[in-house]
Amino acid sequence: MTALSPLAPSAFPGLAPLAGVRLAVQACGIRYVGRPDLLVVEMAEGTTVAGVFTRSLTCSAPVDWCREALAKGRARMLVVNSGNANAFTGRVGVDSVARTVAAAAAALGCKRTEVFVASTGTIGVPLPDDKLVAKLEPARAALKDDAWAEAARAIMTTDTFPKGAVRTATIDGRTVTIQGFAKGAGMIAPDMATMLSFVFTDAALPAAVLQALLVKGVDKSFNCITVDSDTSTSDTLLLFATGRVETAKIADAKDPRLAEFRRALDAVLLDLAHQVVRDGEGASKFVAVTVTGAAGRKAAKRIALAIANSPLVKTAIAGEDANWGRVVMAVGKSGERADRDRLSIRIGGVEVARNGAVVPGYDETPVTAHMKGQEIAIAVDVGIGRGTATVWTCDLTHAYIDINGSYRT
Amino acid sequence: MTALSPLAPSAFPGLAPLAGVRLAVQACGIRYVGRPDLLVVEMAEGTTVAGVFTRSLTCSAPVDWCREALAKGRARMLVVNSGNANAFTGRVGVDSVARTVAAAAAALGCKRTEVFVASTGTIGVPLPDDKLVAKLEPARAALKDDAWAEAARAIMTTDTFPKGAVRTATIDGRTVTIQGFAKGAGMIAPDMATMLSFVFTDAALPAAVLQALLVKGVDKSFNCITVDSDTSTSDTLLLFATGRVETAKIADAKDPRLAEFRRALDAVLLDLAHQVVRDGEGASKFVAVTVTGAAGRKAAKRIALAIANSPLVKTAIAGEDANWGRVVMAVGKSGERADRDRLSIRIGGVEVARNGAVVPGYDETPVTAHMKGQEIAIAVDVGIGRGTATVWTCDLTHAYIDINGSYRT
Repeated sequence: MTALSPLAPSAFPGLAPLAGVRLAVQACGIRYVGRPDLLVVEMAEGTTVAGVFTRSLTCSAPVDWCREALAKGRARMLVVNSGNANAFTGRVGVDSVARTVAAAAAALGCKRTEVFVASTGTIGVPLPDDKLVAKLEPARAALKDDAWAEAARAIMTTDTFPKGAVRTATIDGRTVTIQGFAKGAGMIAPDMATMLSFVFTDAALPAAVLQALLVKGVDKSFNCITVDSDTSTSDTLLLFATGRVETAKIADAKDPRLAEFRRALDAVLLDLAHQVVRDGEGASKFVAVTVTGAAGRKAAKRIALAIANSPLVKTAIAGEDANWGRVVMAVGKSGERADRDRLSIRIGGVEVARNGAVVPGYDETPVTAHMKGQEIAIAVDVGIGRGTATVWTCDLTHAYIDINGSYRT
Repeated sequence: MTALSPLAPSAFPGLAPLAGVRLAVQACGIRYVGRPDLLVVEMAEGTTVAGVFTRSLTCSAPVDWCREALAKGRARMLVVNSGNANAFTGRVGVDSVARTVAAAAAALGCKRTEVFVASTGTIGVPLPDDKLVAKLEPARAALKDDAWAEAARAIMTTDTFPKGAVRTATIDGRTVTIQGFAKGAGMIAPDMATMLSFVFTDAALPAAVLQALLVKGVDKSFNCITVDSDTSTSDTLLLFATGRVETAKIADAKDPRLAEFRRALDAVLLDLAHQVVRDGEGASKFVAVTVTGAAGRKAAKRIALAIANSPLVKTAIAGEDANWGRVVMAVGKSGERADRDRLSIRIGGVEVARNGAVVPGYDETPVTAHMKGQEIAIAVDVGIGRGTATVWTCDLTHAYIDINGSYRT
């Protein structure tokens, strides 16, 4: 439909089978024709689960269900469809989720609270769950351990490439793997980024530990990306641990034996989050905005997001225009403390403004060259304190408007 | 430079001379060539003044000066230039303002705190105030009482039309006039809208009364508009009262004798604010977003702004797509309380969603017809309380990106 993002990675990573996970995709014809739009994942008995969801107050029925099921901390099955978000569908949407969960639990012979569901696509259209339910049995029969790339593709909507990531770590001397996939392209804003992401590990960790690790990792990854400041009703990030690699029982997320695992999980989450930005609707540049010298980390993040979400900054980047005045404007509108007369700005590592004014003898040449590249780095020191944060975004281009202003008439 | 906005009014209103006000424009060649870029306004002795400014924490040197001068509540002269905002120019910018104010005060023989200044245009470039100062004397010699349209044109930057408004009212049986002009097109977001606006009345009112009336009027007008959510460093709205129409002394903004004046002032401010939106960069639709049923007025306004600032909502409007799902999304991301299952949405007066789902038998025909028009009305009831608010915005089009992504290479 849309051309491959120029920022896409060269290939989907090689995700090998992971002990305790089997996947299958099916074509239900919910909205898309001629492509799989249903993903079913079966997990081994004893799998624990953690989750983070959209903070939207108009969240979808599947999100409501996952939040409820998460309280038990156990998972056996994940059912995801693309093409229809089952969001803003009222009572009908809630019933639809209940029927899907009941059918999935019956098919696998597990508890309903062990079934997690997610839907992505159009808002406000009732989900034809009968089509989905009819494919659960065929999906179950087709489960295999190497369908990771197909899984990543089945959940895509406006994405132009499937997104996957993998890292390994050792816990207590034993090697474990963390791998997963994500979808998301538009309606991406922090808390949460508008997306679905499912990450799996063969480590053996209690749900509470998983949850603590996930929340911390999300704060530095998915909650630091923005495409268009719009937040989805359906954002869902689930982390499953099958426990197939046995280690000493670890009951605390801060256990030093988890140091390597934490870093690997953070890396998987950041990798996936960056891929979502790289597939931002219409994106032609990948932009890192780093703020230093803020009153605290929260202030730094808010300033960075004000810059990253500014349409004037984003269109300037699209135009390869090193318009640092718009960066100053965005700092000013963030509402966070900054010292206008101690502010400094670097673009592509080159200082363009210092102490609240353009640097003496400013030579735009290297900055202009940087702006022509695909990876843009904007760094701002606001001259107040020691708070720092980095967020990632993309530029705002004509293609974004083409994609989202669907001239339906 | 840019084609006239399709939403422009048919003509600049006929602004007649106002007792106590004389205006002149000059071409200083600060940035623009072959057009006036300097406005000087002289006001009668005894003129009082009120002002509201950007809340940006990186505001310009002229804004800092006006805030300081406003404390005295008296005005004799207004000096405005276009083409250079004198923002983020450090100590140099402060000195530049000081020199301009001193020269203007000397030319007119008034106090420096009676001189108000405003600058609009590029950020980060030192203002060549010598060029401006050299034209103060010629401007003073050219002052006349009927240069209102020229004044409105001289302060334009990316505006495609000059913006003016006038209303009359009676105070205590005597007729007074309120009239003024504004500029602003991009970088428009509430608190304040990115713009300059100067309003004059021949009424006799103390500065404190003027200030109270202005703050109240702004809350319902300039602080309820948004083009792109970006806030300028230079927003300045000044209200001058020459006192040439004598009435009984009024010391309280809530005085019932001011009822008609209040309404007229509010109307002038709203008229000017609407014109700024109608000249929003790239705008092809004028959009009113009304929220009802919120927890309070503040909550209603925040929800309305979340809708009005959503790139996905704005691109859908540009595409004439009645995509109410994106409206739901924006309500959800606002952070304000809403009841997903009691939410209802009207587009162009037609109910499209009720109780959190699409209306039974929804017929899109009249809604699609409405979306093809130039004036779009979106109304959302969030089903919680009695708070209401209306904000105004425009759509997000390819032209916005053309204007702001200045491909300088």
